[in-house]
Amino acid sequence: MPNLGRSLYLSHGLTRPLDPRVARLMAGLLQESPRDPSLLPSDSVVAERVLEEARSRVAALAGAEAEEVLFTSGATEANNLALKGSGLQPGDEILVGSTEHLSVQHPARTLEKLGARLRWIPVDGEGRVDPGWVVQAIGPATRLVAVMAANHETGTLQPLEDIGRICRERGVRFLVDAAAAAGQLPLDARAWGADLLSLSAHKFAGPRGVGALVVRRGLRLLPLIEGGVQEGGRRSGTENLYGIAGMGEAAELARRDMERRAERVGRLRDRLWEEIQSLVPGAARHGSTRHSLPGHLSFSVPGAEGEALVLGLWRRGVVASSGSACFAHAGKPSHVLRAMGVSDELALCSILFAVGEEMEEEDIGWAAAATAEVAARLRLVSAASPGSGT
Amino acid sequence: MPNLGRSLYLSHGLTRPLDPRVARLMAGLLQESPRDPSLLPSDSVVAERVLEEARSRVAALAGAEAEEVLFTSGATEANNLALKGSGLQPGDEILVGSTEHLSVQHPARTLEKLGARLRWIPVDGEGRVDPGWVVQAIGPATRLVAVMAANHETGTLQPLEDIGRICRERGVRFLVDAAAAAGQLPLDARAWGADLLSLSAHKFAGPRGVGALVVRRGLRLLPLIEGGVQEGGRRSGTENLYGIAGMGEAAELARRDMERRAERVGRLRDRLWEEIQSLVPGAARHGSTRHSLPGHLSFSVPGAEGEALVLGLWRRGVVASSGSACFAHAGKPSHVLRAMGVSDELALCSILFAVGEEMEEEDIGWAAAATAEVAARLRLVSAASPGSGT
Repeated sequence: MPNLGRSLYLSHGLTRPLDPRVARLMAGLLQESPRDPSLLPSDSVVAERVLEEARSRVAALAGAEAEEVLFTSGATEANNLALKGSGLQPGDEILVGSTEHLSVQHPARTLEKLGARLRWIPVDGEGRVDPGWVVQAIGPATRLVAVMAANHETGTLQPLEDIGRICRERGVRFLVDAAAAAGQLPLDARAWGADLLSLSAHKFAGPRGVGALVVRRGLRLLPLIEGGVQEGGRRSGTENLYGIAGMGEAAELARRDMERRAERVGRLRDRLWEEIQSLVPGAARHGSTRHSLPGHLSFSVPGAEGEALVLGLWRRGVVASSGSACFAHAGKPSHVLRAMGVSDELALCSILFAVGEEMEEEDIGWAAAATAEVAARLRLVSAASPGSGT
Repeated sequence: MPNLGRSLYLSHGLTRPLDPRVARLMAGLLQESPRDPSLLPSDSVVAERVLEEARSRVAALAGAEAEEVLFTSGATEANNLALKGSGLQPGDEILVGSTEHLSVQHPARTLEKLGARLRWIPVDGEGRVDPGWVVQAIGPATRLVAVMAANHETGTLQPLEDIGRICRERGVRFLVDAAAAAGQLPLDARAWGADLLSLSAHKFAGPRGVGALVVRRGLRLLPLIEGGVQEGGRRSGTENLYGIAGMGEAAELARRDMERRAERVGRLRDRLWEEIQSLVPGAARHGSTRHSLPGHLSFSVPGAEGEALVLGLWRRGVVASSGSACFAHAGKPSHVLRAMGVSDELALCSILFAVGEEMEEEDIGWAAAATAEVAARLRLVSAASPGSGT
């Protein structure tokens, strides 16, 4: 039955819709903008206040100091800056998680081309890094370790405090991509020993195209974008004032709502998984059940290709993502699941439900039944034409 | 007489206030953002449409094709990307204008540190590049020439078509920083032979923190920010949707209003200069009178330090900028004026009036009288304490 009215958004892992309170603040700021340019001298004072308030709020969300927050155009830029700005020399070594987001992995490969040694940190079947591996792997040439707070696809959390302690002891800088974790679980750059921590506002219901890199006080960082005085010269260019104000508001709301939200979303996710297990035989969950973001549910239905499943669900009003969301259309198995030892065949059948707090109890049956119905059809087709599959 | 009411904004060179029509469009888009995330599937269609419309409008302003426009966080990022993304090898040579904005000069110096050969293109007393110099200077190792469309400080225009033709004939890529020129005079990437052209929205009354790099079709460009599929992989990261929409609207309005605006602003600027000349003995104009942006008026009052002049004017309600606006507080003579052969002493006495269309005829007398009054006081102080000057 095609759903012509309301639909169910289960793609909160990819982007969370802009919070109406954030939209209201940004729209207000835009409308307040001086019509008469002659008012601008006071506008620049306003701009300064807006920037500094947002900086404090983002710092509070990240467990850092305001002066450690550097605004960027998003976590992608923040990750690129963290890696490319670390001043690596040929022969220097970096250890990068094998399930990191591509905005960490691609710059790492670029550094490798420029002469750095790149080693991938393995993960176990749940996608977790073993801190013991990191202890063994760090050598005299190691300069940077990159391990994300939570995986964007599976929701798997990492033992950050242990890894951070090792890095601190060995004098190696530690980059934590916290984009997927922000707004879902408390962040704590200080406790994690993170020297660098990246964020994107739209992952916690802020506007798209704005983010931050938290840079531990005293850490040397070479700019990627230079030629101005903004952000202490570490990130030049006239600031995205409205976006930054929106990010600040979203950070404040995320911090305030976090506990309640995580509790609700986690309960809904667990009930949804129970229902899917009972309706979809063979559905196999990816990631960790103990160490996971509350709303993430990544699983495969053997024989039902992930992208086809997403499309079939979308026709029934259920919005999900397949594989690594950003590369959904690439038709390649997710590097995250591969690194966890999932077969390519099963990885291509993966789908991600990322629950939001607006989900209702009665939506659980809808989502599970739609999944079961679409999966059954796809399995029929795939069984009827062996070899023509994924 | 301190001005307690209205003030006169003459700092359009630094930033133009957000056009209320742009603010309205952005606020509308923010308010339309789906409250119910279940509406998001259609939102992504809306997002796509918003991006593509803005892309066409920015292309129309720049004299380029829509698919050549790549959105960035501003001209600073665009200039950094254009230079650092050109894939230079050690030994490759770049020729960079000696009056370019620091967002071009600083990345050029970084490339020099990495082994490129950097040569500064000289300018004459009006700040103009001699295309004949470029013809002579281009050698077999030359890979890139960077000359801006108009100078941010003096308003001086460059002979772009001649330089572009030389670059095309010699197979050298040509970067045109058009940030200061946009919205003031027609841009034409095609006619100028620009392979790369950079823009910032806030320079033509759009929002801050968004810009574009126009990349000629087929030109190879390495990303600065990588790890995603946005902007064809040449600039990754979730797009600044509201900012980009605002930039598109501002581009459309700028293109439509350009001729009328240039005519009005040019007339006001010329009358203002006449008035200042008659009231402020010794005032010396910088830049070109024939080849200049319509609203720019850069000049020095010998004996009246530029920053002190700006402050004195501000107290009288007239908002101007001193030297290179971004570095106003650095207390160093502008590199632009230095390159034009202006003495450090005179350069430190420089001030920039950049007229906007909201200026009225009667404001001319106000601005000129205030300048005369403040300059006379400063000259008195400076004459009374020789040696304690700049």
